[in-house]
Amino acid sequence: MSKVYVKTFIIKTYGPNKLFDITDKVEKIVEESRIENGVATVFSHGSTGAIVRIKPEQAEEYSYVLWDLVPIDGWQHPGNAYAHLRSTIISTKLALPLIGRKLVLGPARIYFVENQCYVARERRITVAVEGE
Amino acid sequence: MSKVYVKTFIIKTYGPNKLFDITDKVEKIVEESRIENGVATVFSHGSTGAIVRIKPEQAEEYSYVLWDLVPIDGWQHPGNAYAHLRSTIISTKLALPLIGRKLVLGPARIYFVENQCYVARERRITVAVEGE
Amino acid sequence: MSKVYVKTFIIKTYGPNKLFDITDKVEKIVEESRIENGVATVFSHGSTGAIVRIKPEQAEEYSYVLWDLVPIDGWQHPGNAYAHLRSTIISTKLALPLIGRKLVLGPARIYFVENQCYVARERRITVAVEGE
Repeated sequence: MSKVYVKTFIIKTYGPNKLFDITDKVEKIVEESRIENGVATVFSHGSTGAIVRIKPEQAEEYSYVLWDLVPIDGWQHPGNAYAHLRSTIISTKLALPLIGRKLVLGPARIYFVENQCYVARERRITVAVEGE
Repeated sequence: MSKVYVKTFIIKTYGPNKLFDITDKVEKIVEESRIENGVATVFSHGSTGAIVRIKPEQAEEYSYVLWDLVPIDGWQHPGNAYAHLRSTIISTKLALPLIGRKLVLGPARIYFVENQCYVARERRITVAVEGE
Repeated sequence: MSKVYVKTFIIKTYGPNKLFDITDKVEKIVEESRIENGVATVFSHGSTGAIVRIKPEQAEEYSYVLWDLVPIDGWQHPGNAYAHLRSTIISTKLALPLIGRKLVLGPARIYFVENQCYVARERRITVAVEGE
């Protein structure tokens, strides 16, 4: 019989183009849920952030290639459409299978990508764990 | 104890590169589901549309930057591979957390993105609400 | 009352830029789950693959336009950041609604995209079926 466990936390970020490791916070919620098998989904509340799974040693190079694909020129201007484009193509959420109370993550980590030019911005992140 | 509520609706679209606000239709299904906490997922059935969450005042600029990233030149030719590329990088689905019977959406809205050059095309959209 | 069914299989791939049809394997797991209505999610375990839904006759052209958007130059060098970029923008997972024991797929198929330059690489794929 399936159940669901939903919890929210807040991180402080700065940007643009910075990655913040949120793996420990996500894994803690998965553990609290006591769900064995199912799916855990990590949601960023706003529409300009993004969630990625990547190996730590790749994170810096990833931020460069992301910049090449979708440069953040927008932040000196009122508009931030490039941040929305990044959010919609990377996704503001990441879902991972949960097997035997462990997230299927391998050597990768879960990162929040701050696309906007802010200092000490508060970002709200919700984790929903569904399963048995 | 978790349950699931799945419902489909149809919208008429035209394109290419147009956004259609489907938030009210999605929220109505979430309300009907009577699920309090969990995840609501919006799926576009075809493989050339896309679903995005974005603020209304950003929608027009978003369609321009999307055009810059993946131009829709394909529609004058038999192939529509660019529409598939858009669908797969934006995603044909959008999942949002549901907390206290409210979708976590903030000031943003949910849009269907019509990538193809059609008039009065029918697009089928399914919402699955899972939770307790 | 909702339940969840999670199962993993392995495929052999080669690359870069090749698509492998995994629809039959996914549909078999959906059938085994005996779940009628809900959501089926297909996850690729690593952080360099991707899962797409596309019509078979579009698959080859899709691989060309994907190459145009995110070329795989990285494989001659130590880094493979382009593969990570592809994975994060296409997504390493695909979710589909399940209605009346049928995946909503239409004439499309489900493909694993091998972005890396390997021969006979083993790729682990998990399907989670949630619903009633």
